[in-house]
Amino acid sequence: MELEFLGTGAGSPSKSRNVTSVALKLLDESNEIWLFDAGEGTQHQILNTTIRPRKVDKIFITHLHGDHIFGLPGFLSSRSFQGGEQMGELMIFGPKGIKAFIETSLKVSQTKLSYPVKYVELEKEGIIYEDSRFRVITQKLDHRIECFGYRVEEKDYPGELQVDRLRSEKIPAGPIYGKIKNGETVTLEDGRVIDGRDYIGEPKKGRIVTILGDTRQTPNISQLAKDADILVHESTFGKGEGRLAKNYHHSTCIQAAKIAKEFGVKKLLLTHISARYVGKLAKNLEKDACQVFEDSKVVRDFDIINVPFSK
Amino acid sequence: MELEFLGTGAGSPSKSRNVTSVALKLLDESNEIWLFDAGEGTQHQILNTTIRPRKVDKIFITHLHGDHIFGLPGFLSSRSFQGGEQMGELMIFGPKGIKAFIETSLKVSQTKLSYPVKYVELEKEGIIYEDSRFRVITQKLDHRIECFGYRVEEKDYPGELQVDRLRSEKIPAGPIYGKIKNGETVTLEDGRVIDGRDYIGEPKKGRIVTILGDTRQTPNISQLAKDADILVHESTFGKGEGRLAKNYHHSTCIQAAKIAKEFGVKKLLLTHISARYVGKLAKNLEKDACQVFEDSKVVRDFDIINVPFSK
Ligand SMILES: [Zn+2]
Ligand SMILES: [Zn+2]
Repeated sequence: MELEFLGTGAGSPSKSRNVTSVALKLLDESNEIWLFDAGEGTQHQILNTTIRPRKVDKIFITHLHGDHIFGLPGFLSSRSFQGGEQMGELMIFGPKGIKAFIETSLKVSQTKLSYPVKYVELEKEGIIYEDSRFRVITQKLDHRIECFGYRVEEKDYPGELQVDRLRSEKIPAGPIYGKIKNGETVTLEDGRVIDGRDYIGEPKKGRIVTILGDTRQTPNISQLAKDADILVHESTFGKGEGRLAKNYHHSTCIQAAKIAKEFGVKKLLLTHISARYVGKLAKNLEKDACQVFEDSKVVRDFDIINVPFSK
Repeated sequence: MELEFLGTGAGSPSKSRNVTSVALKLLDESNEIWLFDAGEGTQHQILNTTIRPRKVDKIFITHLHGDHIFGLPGFLSSRSFQGGEQMGELMIFGPKGIKAFIETSLKVSQTKLSYPVKYVELEKEGIIYEDSRFRVITQKLDHRIECFGYRVEEKDYPGELQVDRLRSEKIPAGPIYGKIKNGETVTLEDGRVIDGRDYIGEPKKGRIVTILGDTRQTPNISQLAKDADILVHESTFGKGEGRLAKNYHHSTCIQAAKIAKEFGVKKLLLTHISARYVGKLAKNLEKDACQVFEDSKVVRDFDIINVPFSK
């Protein structure tokens, strides 16, 4: 599980940062990639990565501002041109309006996609997607336009069968190991009765990745961010600019760091960096955030961040 | 008068060519820039040029395929963010549907532009724009979707007043030179009668730049291309691929070169190069075209081509 940042800028593209998009790469987990937002040029950025568009089977849109969605029609079209084996359904989650935007773009350009698209226009907060491995929860943020934050919860991994212990106790390998792993109680040939649950290790906690859209500070952020292994938080403004941030419906690096500190986040990634903060100035956003929450980082385009299991 | 190519590829962006857009820079003539098509990432390309988006006051769209229009919403938005002095009206010419695409994109993203946009959805062929310096003529091409080619005709420059001759004939400078320049007949203080028309040089022919969209061969091409100083012609296919080109509603480099040769074109610029033709292969398209019409060139992104007056 990795995050790969495709665009980390705010508003308009600049030479150093494209507009917003980040890929959650679940290649080891489910051989899928999920995209969060797709500003103009997302498909161009992808050309410089190892991401194969056909692997992207879910797209989550935080809000409908152009710098978060104008890359969608092009990405969807190019994904279609790539051809190859039949592609499955692509799911697109986002605020009401996302379907009209995409369908108008495809209709006007007479683009017929080679795969089906399922739109989920968000109305309620809560669980919006769940499968055997992941659960995605959304809450509304506070931006100039309706905006959703996403919390991706990986389900816990069941504990592993303690094969070494079974062997040292001379419990012979065979189909019986399967039953023990399922936690069943079994009777061995020598008469011993074994409770499977005693031979299963601790379950491994699944990881939590929270990706917020553009937002000023609002209590829902904490619900989404609580205990996240990684929190991706916008940082359009810097230290001392809290009032500006509020007026423009954005956040400062300090506000993001306070959330991370207060709500048990493991690692904070700051993105949506304004063109006012170039080079060293962007580093200053990071330094200022680190004063509040040590594991803070201002991400750049093409940064790849591993999502580790918490110890 | 210069052409600057912002995207010279076909269909999808590649690492070496962006999707279609070309700027006609009229900075010396009228301090304007006209954009022809705007595929996704056109605004990103512009970041690497000296083009200032506020100077772009007309956009001509050949057809509504995504690789020619998906950069419009982002370009228009970023042009608006730039602010500065009040910008005048932006005119957008294109096939029916261009307005719906742009207005839906702006509405969904709640983008309010800081300048007015005037849409001209093309219905008839002929003159679609005219001012004191230029005339733009359009004709329908033959593509899978309605497609227009554009012929920009610069008006002739009036002949210059032959000041050296006037001086050598001892005709004293003064307001009378203005009358002579207007071609009036004037009587000098010494009694001589001068016919102004005798002291005005030859008018200078204005230039003709023809920019076609995607098309297979059709008689309208020749009307647009006739005697053009520069013809920008698509070359999605190469020598020997005439049948493929026809089936896909595109052209080959040879077809383009034949047009240039037959209809008195001065210089042929080949664009809309498929990703199948990378590096040396693109050069081959050029070589093959040059066998038919010597002044042929396959353009690349960021090529700047001067449009010279014909001798
Ligand atoms: Zn934004
Ligand atoms: Zn095209």
